[in-house]
Amino acid sequence: MSLITLVTDFGTCDQYVGAIKGVIHQLAPKATVVDITHDIEPRNILRAAFVLRHVWPWYPRGTVHVVVVDPGVGSARQILVGRYAGQYVVAPDNGVITLVHRDLPLEALCVAEDRRNFLPKVSATFHGRDIMAPLAAKLSEGMSITKVGPPTDHVKVLSLPTPDYRPEHVMAGTILFVDRFGNLVSNISREDLASTLRHRPSAQVYLDGVCIGPIRTHYAEVPSGKPLALIDSTDYLEIAVNGGSAAERFQPAGDAVVEVR
Amino acid sequence: MSLITLVTDFGTCDQYVGAIKGVIHQLAPKATVVDITHDIEPRNILRAAFVLRHVWPWYPRGTVHVVVVDPGVGSARQILVGRYAGQYVVAPDNGVITLVHRDLPLEALCVAEDRRNFLPKVSATFHGRDIMAPLAAKLSEGMSITKVGPPTDHVKVLSLPTPDYRPEHVMAGTILFVDRFGNLVSNISREDLASTLRHRPSAQVYLDGVCIGPIRTHYAEVPSGKPLALIDSTDYLEIAVNGGSAAERFQPAGDAVVEVR
Amino acid sequence: MSLITLVTDFGTCDQYVGAIKGVIHQLAPKATVVDITHDIEPRNILRAAFVLRHVWPWYPRGTVHVVVVDPGVGSARQILVGRYAGQYVVAPDNGVITLVHRDLPLEALCVAEDRRNFLPKVSATFHGRDIMAPLAAKLSEGMSITKVGPPTDHVKVLSLPTPDYRPEHVMAGTILFVDRFGNLVSNISREDLASTLRHRPSAQVYLDGVCIGPIRTHYAEVPSGKPLALIDSTDYLEIAVNGGSAAERFQPAGDAVVEVR
Repeated sequence: MSLITLVTDFGTCDQYVGAIKGVIHQLAPKATVVDITHDIEPRNILRAAFVLRHVWPWYPRGTVHVVVVDPGVGSARQILVGRYAGQYVVAPDNGVITLVHRDLPLEALCVAEDRRNFLPKVSATFHGRDIMAPLAAKLSEGMSITKVGPPTDHVKVLSLPTPDYRPEHVMAGTILFVDRFGNLVSNISREDLASTLRHRPSAQVYLDGVCIGPIRTHYAEVPSGKPLALIDSTDYLEIAVNGGSAAERFQPAGDAVVEVR
Repeated sequence: MSLITLVTDFGTCDQYVGAIKGVIHQLAPKATVVDITHDIEPRNILRAAFVLRHVWPWYPRGTVHVVVVDPGVGSARQILVGRYAGQYVVAPDNGVITLVHRDLPLEALCVAEDRRNFLPKVSATFHGRDIMAPLAAKLSEGMSITKVGPPTDHVKVLSLPTPDYRPEHVMAGTILFVDRFGNLVSNISREDLASTLRHRPSAQVYLDGVCIGPIRTHYAEVPSGKPLALIDSTDYLEIAVNGGSAAERFQPAGDAVVEVR
Repeated sequence: MSLITLVTDFGTCDQYVGAIKGVIHQLAPKATVVDITHDIEPRNILRAAFVLRHVWPWYPRGTVHVVVVDPGVGSARQILVGRYAGQYVVAPDNGVITLVHRDLPLEALCVAEDRRNFLPKVSATFHGRDIMAPLAAKLSEGMSITKVGPPTDHVKVLSLPTPDYRPEHVMAGTILFVDRFGNLVSNISREDLASTLRHRPSAQVYLDGVCIGPIRTHYAEVPSGKPLALIDSTDYLEIAVNGGSAAERFQPAGDAVVEVR
């Protein structure tokens, strides 16, 4: 058994996802196709990079992840195939590999150039179907990554806002994402906080100056409807409302400031 | 082949569902994962209970249903594994098993306590990934339910509004759910109606006092745009509009009254 | 391995899709179920016909496509099973087969009448579960299409707006669909345009009289935020905005006119 996962911004109303799955099943009849998400906001490369990074640790060696968030389709942007920690990613070189590339050991990286791995006819607007799906199918059938095309050592990397460690053991960051529950996911990791919490075990979390309280462990630790901060399941600091939506409650702007002090 | 189904309120924008699927595929490589729904309204335990109950009859023996609608994650609420009529459910003890427990024969029920069945590291906010997914994988690989933890005979049960059989053979209930088509699903079952219809074969259905007409068998029995009542595919009385949305047409309040008289 | 795909308007909030999948897995344990879409707009038969047509070429022989967009469920409308180019479709006879029937070689067509292929108890409102799912399962297990019921040569066909080839080599059509990205998909195919472009290689595309420019090959050929026209991955003329939504930009009415002149 081999797994091919899909992370796309195609939504599920159109024929795009169905076409990609058909190509994969046709070329790799033994592969299992796994829907991770097709609901990445259109063209939101950073969001796709984050989802890819945070599903990666849970998949077995040999899994092929196909990421089709590809606003530059048909332009000069390249398609890359990378192997990190025994798993593969097939994706446009537009930044979607940023976080996997930053955090996981790179084993091989190639540019998809050998057209024998593509569908015979390649459209200008749907490389997910015509290039990435057949490549994923062939990798899952055992094709060596060296057959993909020439090796490269260049990946386009998004510049991400990084948290600041300020004087007096204050850690300051921002909100990166809002999840389905309205939880606000910051760019401050458990690791980033280690030093602050060592020096200030009773540090409080602030969102745009409003105190949210100490760092809790789970949602039900505060009464229903009350805000709280915790380290979430991806090991990042998150601001939530127990039984509610922190996004609705706080409506943070794009440059919201999260501080732990 | 064994099936593991997923009923969650995670939506499909985030990494949550992808992480759960990865854990299952990693630990149970022969299992087939079936998406039932990830679009349960956040924290709507009753809706999940209803969906679980109404897919149950269609699955084969040995199927493992994982229900992750878990607002109390990390608190003292327990995780249960139950076997009913040859199928398994892995779910938090918050009421999501209510309808299966009421309607299907219980064969075994255990509290998930043996940490050897969990992931090595258990987060405080994502037991779907760290506890429920590995448990489901192990059950589908043939682990006995007795290895889950101590048996129990207690399940948290939601109190549901029950229909009233009133004098003069009037049956009165309320609206439980609105489905995707805007159909209004009541809490009055085919069985509840048997006596009323025996005494009053020409009984009419009323929604908040407005006559909807007799109980029909299918939507196209009335002209397009007209309302009707029928017994739906889950054997409950439903109010619909042929080719339209009864929810838009009637905009029923939470305490809407459905009568058959 | 055999594939059974699903195209429905059930959405993913309710139990409908889960019930269909259960029936299929129970009756065809070796089949792989592929979600194409459950998000067809309720009762939008034309949209389902289009999706079915444009995923078809990518699936292997023997695939069974189940289309449950069925507002007439329970009425006198028939359920058909067709084989076109080695693949099967199981669908109500309401027009969803229109485009497959128009474009692909018909090999066999039967009316689903033999009740031994249905579930023992057939509801009046959910033939997707009670008739189409078991039929698809049996076909994927190798049952001959001749066992479905009597052959027929009649399929209900939707009347589609067709583009006009006007004097002076002008091609005029309309917008059929808007996809997830807000791209406007017209009813003018690559083939329809061949003659116009031969006579007028520098022809421009107009939407309701507004010039969109020449036919490009990919989105990034114009600056971000600018409109463009191209032949899309289904070989139809499409109007888009690079990095944006043409639907938002132009808000075309239902009778919008697309011209190439």
